[in-house]
Amino acid sequence: MPRTLFRLLLFATVLPVAAAAAQVNWSPPPLGLMPAPAAVRASSGRVPITAGTTFALTGVVDDRLRTGVTRLIVRLQSRTGLMLSRTLTTPAGSATVVINCKGPGFTTPALGEDESYTLDAGAQVVLNANTVAGALRGLETLRQLLLGDAGGFFIPGISIEDRPRFPWRGLLIDVGRHFEPVEVIKRELDAMAAVKLNVLHWHLSDDQGFRVESRKFPKLQQLASDGDYYTQDQLRDVIEYARQRAIRVVPEFDMPGHVTSWVVAYPELASAPGPYELARKFGVFDAAFDPTRKETYKFIDAFIGEMAPIFPDAYWHIGGDENNGKQWQANPKIQAFIKEKGIKDAHALQTYFNQQLVGILHKHGKRMMGWDEILQLGLPKEAVIQSWRGQKSLVDAAKQGYDGVLSAGYYIDLMNTAASHYAVDPLPPTADLTSAEATHVLGGEATMWGEWVDPETIDSRIWPRTAAIAERFWSTGQDPDVDDFYRRLAVVSVELEELGLTHLRNADVLLRRLTGGADVAPLRTLADLVEPVKGYQRGGQQPWMTTLGPLTHLVDAVSTDSPGARATTALANNLLGDAPRFSLARNELEARFTQWLEVRAAITRLADQSPALREVTPLADDLAAMGEIGLDALACLSRRIAPDAAWRDAKLAALDRAARPKAALEFPFVTSMRELVIGAVEQGQLATMSPAEWRARVRSLAAPPRRGRE
Amino acid sequence: MPRTLFRLLLFATVLPVAAAAAQVNWSPPPLGLMPAPAAVRASSGRVPITAGTTFALTGVVDDRLRTGVTRLIVRLQSRTGLMLSRTLTTPAGSATVVINCKGPGFTTPALGEDESYTLDAGAQVVLNANTVAGALRGLETLRQLLLGDAGGFFIPGISIEDRPRFPWRGLLIDVGRHFEPVEVIKRELDAMAAVKLNVLHWHLSDDQGFRVESRKFPKLQQLASDGDYYTQDQLRDVIEYARQRAIRVVPEFDMPGHVTSWVVAYPELASAPGPYELARKFGVFDAAFDPTRKETYKFIDAFIGEMAPIFPDAYWHIGGDENNGKQWQANPKIQAFIKEKGIKDAHALQTYFNQQLVGILHKHGKRMMGWDEILQLGLPKEAVIQSWRGQKSLVDAAKQGYDGVLSAGYYIDLMNTAASHYAVDPLPPTADLTSAEATHVLGGEATMWGEWVDPETIDSRIWPRTAAIAERFWSTGQDPDVDDFYRRLAVVSVELEELGLTHLRNADVLLRRLTGGADVAPLRTLADLVEPVKGYQRGGQQPWMTTLGPLTHLVDAVSTDSPGARATTALANNLLGDAPRFSLARNELEARFTQWLEVRAAITRLADQSPALREVTPLADDLAAMGEIGLDALACLSRRIAPDAAWRDAKLAALDRAARPKAALEFPFVTSMRELVIGAVEQGQLATMSPAEWRARVRSLAAPPRRGRE
Repeated sequence: MPRTLFRLLLFATVLPVAAAAAQVNWSPPPLGLMPAPAAVRASSGRVPITAGTTFALTGVVDDRLRTGVTRLIVRLQSRTGLMLSRTLTTPAGSATVVINCKGPGFTTPALGEDESYTLDAGAQVVLNANTVAGALRGLETLRQLLLGDAGGFFIPGISIEDRPRFPWRGLLIDVGRHFEPVEVIKRELDAMAAVKLNVLHWHLSDDQGFRVESRKFPKLQQLASDGDYYTQDQLRDVIEYARQRAIRVVPEFDMPGHVTSWVVAYPELASAPGPYELARKFGVFDAAFDPTRKETYKFIDAFIGEMAPIFPDAYWHIGGDENNGKQWQANPKIQAFIKEKGIKDAHALQTYFNQQLVGILHKHGKRMMGWDEILQLGLPKEAVIQSWRGQKSLVDAAKQGYDGVLSAGYYIDLMNTAASHYAVDPLPPTADLTSAEATHVLGGEATMWGEWVDPETIDSRIWPRTAAIAERFWSTGQDPDVDDFYRRLAVVSVELEELGLTHLRNADVLLRRLTGGADVAPLRTLADLVEPVKGYQRGGQQPWMTTLGPLTHLVDAVSTDSPGARATTALANNLLGDAPRFSLARNELEARFTQWLEVRAAITRLADQSPALREVTPLADDLAAMGEIGLDALACLSRRIAPDAAWRDAKLAALDRAARPKAALEFPFVTSMRELVIGAVEQGQLATMSPAEWRARVRSLAAPPRRGRE
Repeated sequence: MPRTLFRLLLFATVLPVAAAAAQVNWSPPPLGLMPAPAAVRASSGRVPITAGTTFALTGVVDDRLRTGVTRLIVRLQSRTGLMLSRTLTTPAGSATVVINCKGPGFTTPALGEDESYTLDAGAQVVLNANTVAGALRGLETLRQLLLGDAGGFFIPGISIEDRPRFPWRGLLIDVGRHFEPVEVIKRELDAMAAVKLNVLHWHLSDDQGFRVESRKFPKLQQLASDGDYYTQDQLRDVIEYARQRAIRVVPEFDMPGHVTSWVVAYPELASAPGPYELARKFGVFDAAFDPTRKETYKFIDAFIGEMAPIFPDAYWHIGGDENNGKQWQANPKIQAFIKEKGIKDAHALQTYFNQQLVGILHKHGKRMMGWDEILQLGLPKEAVIQSWRGQKSLVDAAKQGYDGVLSAGYYIDLMNTAASHYAVDPLPPTADLTSAEATHVLGGEATMWGEWVDPETIDSRIWPRTAAIAERFWSTGQDPDVDDFYRRLAVVSVELEELGLTHLRNADVLLRRLTGGADVAPLRTLADLVEPVKGYQRGGQQPWMTTLGPLTHLVDAVSTDSPGARATTALANNLLGDAPRFSLARNELEARFTQWLEVRAAITRLADQSPALREVTPLADDLAAMGEIGLDALACLSRRIAPDAAWRDAKLAALDRAARPKAALEFPFVTSMRELVIGAVEQGQLATMSPAEWRARVRSLAAPPRRGRE
């Protein structure tokens, strides 16, 4: 019996209907399924996938479904190497896979779509759905179910009932700071479909660039895009590509702040006289629309009137964030306007602005969405609030009767780990909301802000982490086993690459560029052990960077979830958990620490030929220092010699140095190294306490004084 | 002194002006320069590249040059990680790099452009050119000159005078069999520019697909493209992208044969009644235009009239190859036409067809180009002949006064090695042509026929091999040192990847897909030791494949130039050349052979979970068998025990089995394994002859009876 099938059946026993309702008592789903279905029941048997495998469509059939099935066939071909027929079979009873779709659902994707489906693999594979969108979601599950063993490829016997927990499951892509060409957006849409996300929130303008072609206001793209913008045909092409995958596209044109690019082209829109230049740095800029002039609204009306037919979604994101109000304060005419109208302050002025926008949007058939700053007294109730400053604003909005979408906790540009994002829930059991209020929580969005990504690196910043967030939005429960969570994430990661994503392959490209083509093995060892600095630290580490700078540093090549760090921490835990023998994992740790010394030597040599590696050598030095400390600690533990406090203090001081970020990178396992040091020193205490007590003591003594995260 | 600079200076001593004229006495160029410049002189000194590096343009400046300089700056940034200014400096004297362009040259690229340039790096870097095209060529050389050492990045002191040997240096990309989206064509153009190719020959229609949008005849793309075609905007976009790089785009619409896609849409064009279906298999099909009907020419006239303004180049490729004549023979009206007009045979009828085409092309301002079948009595002298059936037709054409371009020997779809293509010269010293006739040889074209490539694999089929062909077309001499040739090719290969090519990165994607995400190391070891079968053998190995089949087999992941095979052969040569001691390279060979046994075990395990690997296990078995044979032979040599004839015959028989292609792959080092076997058996002969005589005897006895190539 193949291991995977065994695993599947194991779960089937433990978990006849897996966690359909509750968030508690939830177990990880079998196979690599991500997001986990609402209910899974495994059965014996299998449906072989061979060169003779056939497909049938019954019920409603449209172009989305037909091309969706062709996509699945092509992907099964790619994985199996088999030549499959794309010709659909009749009658359905004779087909290997039958997709039965009861209705078309929304032919243009819309909020509130029925995305449920059932999938049964017994004598044949039968996928049932009420809508094409549901069928497309089921096809992605079917793709993930493909297994192989000595008997060939097959779909395991299984019965799945599935539906999403939240109706709004989005990914924001900011193309304002760095432009992402059509082919990049398309591959992100492929990946989104693979993990059942259904909203592309396309952030199309910002201080650093205006990214769409306007025929009414052509200076926008001519003067404020550096030539990097989407033509209207390209916008339509992307939106149709999304529609084929039942993904909505919500455009964002941020205003009244974040508008430097608009006022580069049309300075008369601003609240202070121009001329303006495109922002190249990052942060909050002063430019803001003048909300007191009729011409401003006439312009916005004409612009939205031009764009509204291109974007069929009912929602329109007006941004509304981070307007610092400086231009408004400094402009006497605006201050006079405030006084005259009895407007309280800048916030109220922005609400006034938003109220005008609501009218304009209505005229063009759109509902307003905005960042949580727009949640001010007087905001029309139909507005949707996107919470970025914290979960509280989502709860506040829901209590006041506004629909809301959570992005706080899903800022993937901050380079936090997949597990940390996964831990955030749009609607935790602790949320202080009535069930009626809770229905206002529509879901969430991961946000790929564009300061530090370009077409070569963006995939590795979005994926595979966003698959974890997608599971959070789709599935009812949470995987309690971090190791299994990362195992499933690794499966999805390789699957995404098969769909054309570049997050794995491009890492090596960056390493080869850094080494100038030489052997990348030592650099890869180091790269696997570090993580990018979290939050907004990178800007401090590389203050000279602008939108025109090179995203080709080591930090651009490494994952937010260091596999080497996870492995090192696990080994250290095994060793210290094996007190007082300390033999478990000893050899692996010794080999690892020894390798770190070799890595330093190799990288030092490489840096002499590849000066781009010079910023990396201090990290290699740190790694070697930690290797030496680790070997020392291991020797002390195996010889049962407890070193003294001076030794401990020297080692801890060295580890403090290693813990300091360098080249915008950090080692996320320094605390484990501290525990090894403390463990060596504290050996004697094992005479007076149980191994578990001792382990807790070591953990507590080793807790870093100021920093650290593991 | 850094190794690379030392190497540079070494060559400077040996080669004050490198091989500017002659093909003999030519030495490999220093650094990674490919194609090699006509003349290189190294000097001491260096121009540092730092964050303060600046650029200036003097003389003629246009958008091509300005964006070309920006591209260079971005690439230098990527490699160095430095933030460079894109603002050009004045005065030029204070800039790090000065580009001085004396005239614009052809603003639309055209045959006969002056592409020469000089580049001097002393106190500053000065690039001089007569045309923008020449300046762009020089900028690519400058990009290749970037070096680094412990002192930082720099351009070494150097003086280069350079110009191309041939004016027509092309790459054909066939998008008929497999479509290649715009972004693929653009990255191929980037790579072409990097190695100074100047013609994209775009094969846009064939039996398997019609790939451009016609507004006059929309059924062409609607019925005959599977939805995979270029809009007219996309064609213009690609042509402008090429123009920016001083690359001509010559379209090919193959006729009167290879026209199944045309007649799927418009069956009335064919010489036999329809309906027709798109070809899915490969080979020669019967469909041919009816050359006797006026309506055929009217259609072609209208079509070319629509397309001619889109393609600005003076040349228009009409194909003209592989018309099997069956439809013409079977059509009584065509036979009656032949009789009536006194046309001799099908060849003459095709010449008649071509004569009509020449008139149509003239009308639209185009000169005809075609495959060498069109070289028939009566062909207008202005036609350009592309020789694919052999070098003879190029010579015949030149003698008759026709311009010609060589493609025989540059069919990169046949999966021959880079060195074998490099050995072919469009105008070898042995060519029986007067110098006047020789001027008709315009150059050559590598041909990427599309049967076995898709967007994921095409780069690895074109690159880096085509860089070798590009050197053949540009440079005067030939690198006599195969090892150095491959060293330079490896440098170029990594450089091309930096420009966005995917030939290296996608190999791992294919391996990960084959293993289902498991560790790919053992599969990579095997992949590095095999090469795709050469010539047209793959069709025989995978007869079930069509244009819709999966190009995701191991053969799609491996290079035509197995680095592992080259290394194995080199080691075996070292060992046998070290007779009678046989100690040189012994340990390396032993480690290698032992690893081959482990590879079999690992791949057998992997195949149990990844059935797509089943076709690979026989290769793993062969590899293990060769590993055992190798270890046996090594043992015999080191123990000075000569095995008997029965041992030899059993080993040679096993090697014969290993030499047979499997899964469309073959081991290119089997002859070396035979030499080890023969060497072991023939040890005794060392008593009676010199080591050199003995080595020759082993080589001769080991020469494979039927097959083999190394």
